[in-house]
Amino acid sequence: MGSRVKPRLSRGLRDLLPEQMGARQRLIDTIRGVYERYGFAPLATPAIEYLEVLSGSEAGAETQKQIFTVSNPEQEELGLRFDLTVPLARVVAQYRDLPRPFRRYQVGSVWRADKPDPGRFREFTQFDIDAVGVPGEVADAEIIAATCDALRALRVGAFRVRFSSRRVLNLLLPFAGIPAERGPDVFRVLDKLEKIGAKKLRLELTTGYEDESGDRIPGLGLENSQVDGIERFLAQRAETREGLLAALRELFGSLPDAEAEIDTLARIGHQLDVMGFDESEAELDVSIARGLAYYTGPVYEAVLLDAPQFGSVFGGGRYDDLVMRFLGERVPATGGSIGVDRLLAALAHLGKLRTRHATADVLVTVFDRNDVDDDLRTVQELRRAGIAAELYVGSGRGPGKQLRYADKTGIPLVLVCGPDEKERGVVAIKDLAAGARESAQVESREQWREERPGQREVPRGELVASVRSLLDQIRRESESA
Amino acid sequence: MGSRVKPRLSRGLRDLLPEQMGARQRLIDTIRGVYERYGFAPLATPAIEYLEVLSGSEAGAETQKQIFTVSNPEQEELGLRFDLTVPLARVVAQYRDLPRPFRRYQVGSVWRADKPDPGRFREFTQFDIDAVGVPGEVADAEIIAATCDALRALRVGAFRVRFSSRRVLNLLLPFAGIPAERGPDVFRVLDKLEKIGAKKLRLELTTGYEDESGDRIPGLGLENSQVDGIERFLAQRAETREGLLAALRELFGSLPDAEAEIDTLARIGHQLDVMGFDESEAELDVSIARGLAYYTGPVYEAVLLDAPQFGSVFGGGRYDDLVMRFLGERVPATGGSIGVDRLLAALAHLGKLRTRHATADVLVTVFDRNDVDDDLRTVQELRRAGIAAELYVGSGRGPGKQLRYADKTGIPLVLVCGPDEKERGVVAIKDLAAGARESAQVESREQWREERPGQREVPRGELVASVRSLLDQIRRESESA
Repeated sequence: MGSRVKPRLSRGLRDLLPEQMGARQRLIDTIRGVYERYGFAPLATPAIEYLEVLSGSEAGAETQKQIFTVSNPEQEELGLRFDLTVPLARVVAQYRDLPRPFRRYQVGSVWRADKPDPGRFREFTQFDIDAVGVPGEVADAEIIAATCDALRALRVGAFRVRFSSRRVLNLLLPFAGIPAERGPDVFRVLDKLEKIGAKKLRLELTTGYEDESGDRIPGLGLENSQVDGIERFLAQRAETREGLLAALRELFGSLPDAEAEIDTLARIGHQLDVMGFDESEAELDVSIARGLAYYTGPVYEAVLLDAPQFGSVFGGGRYDDLVMRFLGERVPATGGSIGVDRLLAALAHLGKLRTRHATADVLVTVFDRNDVDDDLRTVQELRRAGIAAELYVGSGRGPGKQLRYADKTGIPLVLVCGPDEKERGVVAIKDLAAGARESAQVESREQWREERPGQREVPRGELVASVRSLLDQIRRESESA
Repeated sequence: MGSRVKPRLSRGLRDLLPEQMGARQRLIDTIRGVYERYGFAPLATPAIEYLEVLSGSEAGAETQKQIFTVSNPEQEELGLRFDLTVPLARVVAQYRDLPRPFRRYQVGSVWRADKPDPGRFREFTQFDIDAVGVPGEVADAEIIAATCDALRALRVGAFRVRFSSRRVLNLLLPFAGIPAERGPDVFRVLDKLEKIGAKKLRLELTTGYEDESGDRIPGLGLENSQVDGIERFLAQRAETREGLLAALRELFGSLPDAEAEIDTLARIGHQLDVMGFDESEAELDVSIARGLAYYTGPVYEAVLLDAPQFGSVFGGGRYDDLVMRFLGERVPATGGSIGVDRLLAALAHLGKLRTRHATADVLVTVFDRNDVDDDLRTVQELRRAGIAAELYVGSGRGPGKQLRYADKTGIPLVLVCGPDEKERGVVAIKDLAAGARESAQVESREQWREERPGQREVPRGELVASVRSLLDQIRRESESA
């Protein structure tokens, strides 16, 4: 053998071990199920795109610098996709006979060679949902509704999808006496409101400031009177969507186009009501700005109310210039993206993820490795009955090692069927969690041997039924916990 | 606007549009379900690995040349993974406290900058299943059993998983008087048997030949007497595994180690019998060689008997030197890979894939785009009942365009509820397939208006129940077709 290769990953990359993958797959399956119930159809695109397709897209200059470049034998200029929106735009432009409306979802990895931070990765997963070819705001309302339903189905606890409109935000500029061309800069700073607070927001809009680490944050050079106008706008709050809409009409009433833009928001709110999502889940909130420059209408984002420090776990909006770069024509489109990694991190923080290594619910232990026929029959009987079961195939001997394996991987039930059990026509089932609970109450070695905490014997013929009822019980307990 | 960007993909790459994605996802979900029932746990690794990890692995020189290289800001030497086995080896070496046995599955894209051919892609999907840390052949038997069960669950029709052993194949070398070091070359050529036939096999083992396109295929320079020995070996066939094992014992009986190696195959066959997979699905076939050099024990592959021209849709074997490159120690491992794209191509060829664009089973049409409240309530009621439903949000007007949309996307049922239906408290349901069938029998325009092929009216309150029963009926019809 030559010199050994060190097993390692490049910075910002990570493996998802079985403990993490189980919860991740359940989350993705759940979102997929909801989006499919709303009639969105799956799309997949390659990881590799032409650099020409990726660069010059409307994503910010920062993102452009983060593209991983790729080489093929033909020496073409290629890169890994950094989002799922650019590939969608390419697909819509490339296949002119796609059904319209084209309502698709796509879940997959994207790559950004970001400065790696703890909890920030260079390969991460986005779950996107978009409706292309739909000018009406019912498409926006449906994206918001589907995402509310997905968050409900994920049992994330209290959440809030906030919506507003880039066009209503645009009204803010004439209202506060700010020239239209400053819009993108102003909105980029406004998007930080929740993160930095009102005081730093004013400083960043005017003179700039020095942050905790001594870095100079430059200011936009607005007048304080202009910021007063912005603050009056941001102060618009009301108990109900209706109340807020009325306040907006009063505030902007004299500006051209104000009525039409506020009406659009009113219709989205009304449609969400009709679909069964009231203010408590889908809130009109004119303070949300969304950082990206390319939004042209309604914008929306979602936060978990019990984990606001994770920021928005979903964000999107209408971007009618999607395929302009490819086709030179406008195609109406609206959609958003769930940050799967961020959502999982928030759910883990809230203790809402079940993490275990194993997929099996039952471990069939082996007494004699040279005679596993009966064990194979047992494990196969469980599998045929739809119960995920694993035969212990490790090289270790003795029940201790097999029990420790079940414990380490999180398999809840362990079957033991040695010669003694076989002779009596029974199988011993150990419930590891119950065993741990009951063991804590055992006071002597004799009592332990007598009572065998968490263990019971069932007739061999009743094995499947007994396992099923124990698993049901465990499931109920974990749900009520 | 600047100059337009052409919407296109680099060669060998492709999009998976919704028509293709639906069947692909069902296939992957089904395999996942079976492998999880066998207690295999999911793993995911990044697309990007260090070149050092990828290259120098035991994959052939050909594959090494096909690595897509990747650049990050730190200018490290990186590449896209070309299989899921090298990342598994890295993971096993990197995380020393993983549970052992480590029984994992992984499904994901791999990249090879192959010469692109029709039907051959540079990004494709593998579905791998492996058991690491298990020396006993029960692990091999379980991989074969799980894959048989997956193929059953996929309803691929008749299939055959063939198994043999690289070590039994090794016995062929002394038997035929071939030096051991010629083994890898000989096995590489033997692997082509099914593809090129016995006559060309002999030529390639001896003098070489010129193929149809005039290319010179070099020969290995074996003697004809040595090839006679190989042919005697390949001629070993029997009705049963038992018969074949007996023939092998007779043929190789005098060679050292023969007994032990044949016993291993006998045990795998016996365990498969015990698990419920007989010769008709899991066949002992000593002619299979598997191309890769790194197998060290049992090898296996699967073919669809009705689509043999697609080659093996699954292949694998035992490769105990997996992590040697990283750790300098042997770790027993066995596993295989389903070629998802090849399997899908074979199933499409057999007419066994249901392909449609839509995920929705019902399209709710819109009569008046300015008053969609009732339509929203209807579509939401269906979704809450677990029925995948889509509201027509396109910009087109009139029922014709909406029906064509349902037809194009493959949505089977279309709901119509205009002012007339509303007044009468009913909803009209059109079954597009039934409509097409019945229309063919209609002889006049009057009759068509009278009978409204494929259309029925149901009371609004019975909508969900009616839709459910129609969908059940459609499902039954498509399954019996």
